[in-house]
Amino acid sequence: MIMEDFVIGIDLGGTNFRLAVVNPQGIIADRMHCPVESGRGKEVILEDLISSIQTLVKSQIPNQGHLLAAGLGVPGLIRSEEGIVTESPNLQGWINFDIRTPTEAALGVPLAIENDANCFAIGEFWRGAAQDANHACALTLGTGVGGGIILNGQIWRGTDGMAGEVGHMVIETDGLPCKCGSRGCLEQYASATAIRQFAVEALMSNGETLLKRWQDNLEELTAEDVFEAAREGDKVAQDLFRKMGYFLGIGLTNLVNLLNVEMIVLGGKVSSAWEFFIPETEKTVRERAFKVPAQRVQIVKSILGDNGGITGAAYLALKRARSI
Amino acid sequence: MIMEDFVIGIDLGGTNFRLAVVNPQGIIADRMHCPVESGRGKEVILEDLISSIQTLVKSQIPNQGHLLAAGLGVPGLIRSEEGIVTESPNLQGWINFDIRTPTEAALGVPLAIENDANCFAIGEFWRGAAQDANHACALTLGTGVGGGIILNGQIWRGTDGMAGEVGHMVIETDGLPCKCGSRGCLEQYASATAIRQFAVEALMSNGETLLKRWQDNLEELTAEDVFEAAREGDKVAQDLFRKMGYFLGIGLTNLVNLLNVEMIVLGGKVSSAWEFFIPETEKTVRERAFKVPAQRVQIVKSILGDNGGITGAAYLALKRARSI
Repeated sequence: MIMEDFVIGIDLGGTNFRLAVVNPQGIIADRMHCPVESGRGKEVILEDLISSIQTLVKSQIPNQGHLLAAGLGVPGLIRSEEGIVTESPNLQGWINFDIRTPTEAALGVPLAIENDANCFAIGEFWRGAAQDANHACALTLGTGVGGGIILNGQIWRGTDGMAGEVGHMVIETDGLPCKCGSRGCLEQYASATAIRQFAVEALMSNGETLLKRWQDNLEELTAEDVFEAAREGDKVAQDLFRKMGYFLGIGLTNLVNLLNVEMIVLGGKVSSAWEFFIPETEKTVRERAFKVPAQRVQIVKSILGDNGGITGAAYLALKRARSI
Repeated sequence: MIMEDFVIGIDLGGTNFRLAVVNPQGIIADRMHCPVESGRGKEVILEDLISSIQTLVKSQIPNQGHLLAAGLGVPGLIRSEEGIVTESPNLQGWINFDIRTPTEAALGVPLAIENDANCFAIGEFWRGAAQDANHACALTLGTGVGGGIILNGQIWRGTDGMAGEVGHMVIETDGLPCKCGSRGCLEQYASATAIRQFAVEALMSNGETLLKRWQDNLEELTAEDVFEAAREGDKVAQDLFRKMGYFLGIGLTNLVNLLNVEMIVLGGKVSSAWEFFIPETEKTVRERAFKVPAQRVQIVKSILGDNGGITGAAYLALKRARSI
C-alpha cells in the first residue's frame, strides 16, 4: 500500500494502548498494541507510547509516508486545548499531566488529545455508524460506560471540556454506589460490571442456569461468561441482558428527552451481546421518552468497534495538523 | 414613556395568558393578562389572544409605537420554524395547530412561536440571570418542571425542536408515574405537585406539624401552604423542601455531568421557596457530580421571574422581525 500523508491514532486504556497508521480519508493501515502497566508511572507509559509511535512511523518509510500529527484518546478528564490530562481514574498519577509537550518534542509533529469516549463518538461520526447524523450520542459499554455527544457535527465539550459523561447520569437516585463517588449512575446498570453483578445476584436465587458453574468461584465469573451462557440458550443469562437493556433504555430515554438527537451509537465490548439487550432497550425508549423524539432516534450498533477511538483520535490529529 | 418600535411577548399557560409590550432592549412596558378556558376550544383562545394583542397595540398609539412582531411561548411541543403547535398537554385539542397563519393575518406582523420553557431560558439569557453565560440550562419549577438548554448562546432545539425536556429526565427508574406516560421523571420530585404529594405523605405519619390543619381536607392542601408553613418555622414543611431540593440536585447533577454548563437558572413558583431547598440542591450537586464541572456551575435564581417567558418570546419576535 503506497501512502503519502498519514496520522497516528492512539487509544490509551487502563490495561493497554492501541495505535494505528490512519490515512487522511480515515482508513486504517498498520496497527499495533502494547500493554500498559499503570503502576509503573506515567513517564514509563509515555516512553512506551512514543517508541511505539516511532516504530509505526518507521514502518511507513518504505511507503514514503509522511507523518502529519498524532491523536491520543485518554480515559478521563482532558483539557484538550492545552494538551493536559486533568485526571484519569484508570491511570495512576495522571493528574494535571502535560502529555503534549514531551510527545510533540519527541515526535516533531502536533499531538491532539481528547477523552477516549469523545474519540469514539468522533470516529463513528467521521467514518462509522453516525456519518449521516448531525446530532448524535455515542456510548461505549465496557467495564464502565463512556459517552460522547455530537451536536451540529461537533463534539460537545462543555465549559471545561468535561461534558458527555453519560455513564454518570443518575438513573436511580439512591442506587448502587459508583466509583465516581455518586450513586445510581447508568454505568452501574449498563456495563460489563453491571452484567457480572446481576449474575452474582441471580446465583443467590435457586433457578436453573448454566451460570451455576461459577457458584463456588464467583470471583472468576465475567460478563463474557454470561454472554456465552446467553448464547447457549440460558434463560437466566438472557434475562440479565434484558435487565441491563432496560436500564440502558432509561439512560437513552434521558438523552432523547434532553437532546432530541437523531442517532445513538452503542459500542464497547458489551455491545457484542446486541441481540440479547437491544429489544428491551428499544422498547423502553419507545415507552418512556416523548413520542416524536423517540420515533426520530435511531439506536444503532457501532460500525468501527475497537477502531472507533483510534479513528476519532486520527480525525483530531488531522484537524490539529491543519490548524497549526 | 415615548416608544418607537416594539414587540409583543406572550406567555400562554393552561389557565391564563400574559402579554406585554417590550422594547428592542428587552424592557417591559405595559402588561395585561387574560384567563384561558382551554375547554372552549382553540379558536376561542386564539380570538382572545389576538384581541388582547390588538388592545395592547392600540395602547401604544399615543406613544407613536410601531409593532414589529409578536412572540408566543406555548407549553408543549412546538415546530417553531413552521409556527405549529404539535401538541400541548395543557391546551385541549391543540394538535398540529397552525397558530401562525391566522395570527399573522390578523396582526399584519410576523409571529414567532416557541416552547414556553425555552422562552424562559432565552429571556434569562437575554436580560436575566444568565446574561454572562454562554452555556446554561434554565428550569421552571411550577406545577411541572420545564426546561431550556442554551449552548453557545443558542437555544438547543434538537432534531425536531423538542430538546430540553429536563422535567422528563428519569431519576428513579421505577419511580412515581408521570403524566407523560413515563415514571420517575424529575417533575414528580421537584415541582409544586411533588411538594404537595410529599406533604400528603408526611401527614400519614404522626409528627407535629402545622400541616395538620389540612389533615381532614387534603384536597385543598397546596405547595403554597407548605411554603407558608415552612416560613412559619414548621420543621416538617422545611424537610419537605429539603427533600425536593435533594431530588432537584440529582436532576442538576445529570445536567452538569452531561453538558458541563456554566450556569443553571431556576425559576417558576416553587423557586420562591429558594432558601428552603437550595442548600440541599447545592450540596447534592457538589457531592454527586464530577468535581470540576460541579465547581464550575453556578446555580442561580431567575431574575425575571414571571416575565422570563414574555421576555424570551419578545426576543424571538425581534429576531423574526429582523430575519424577514
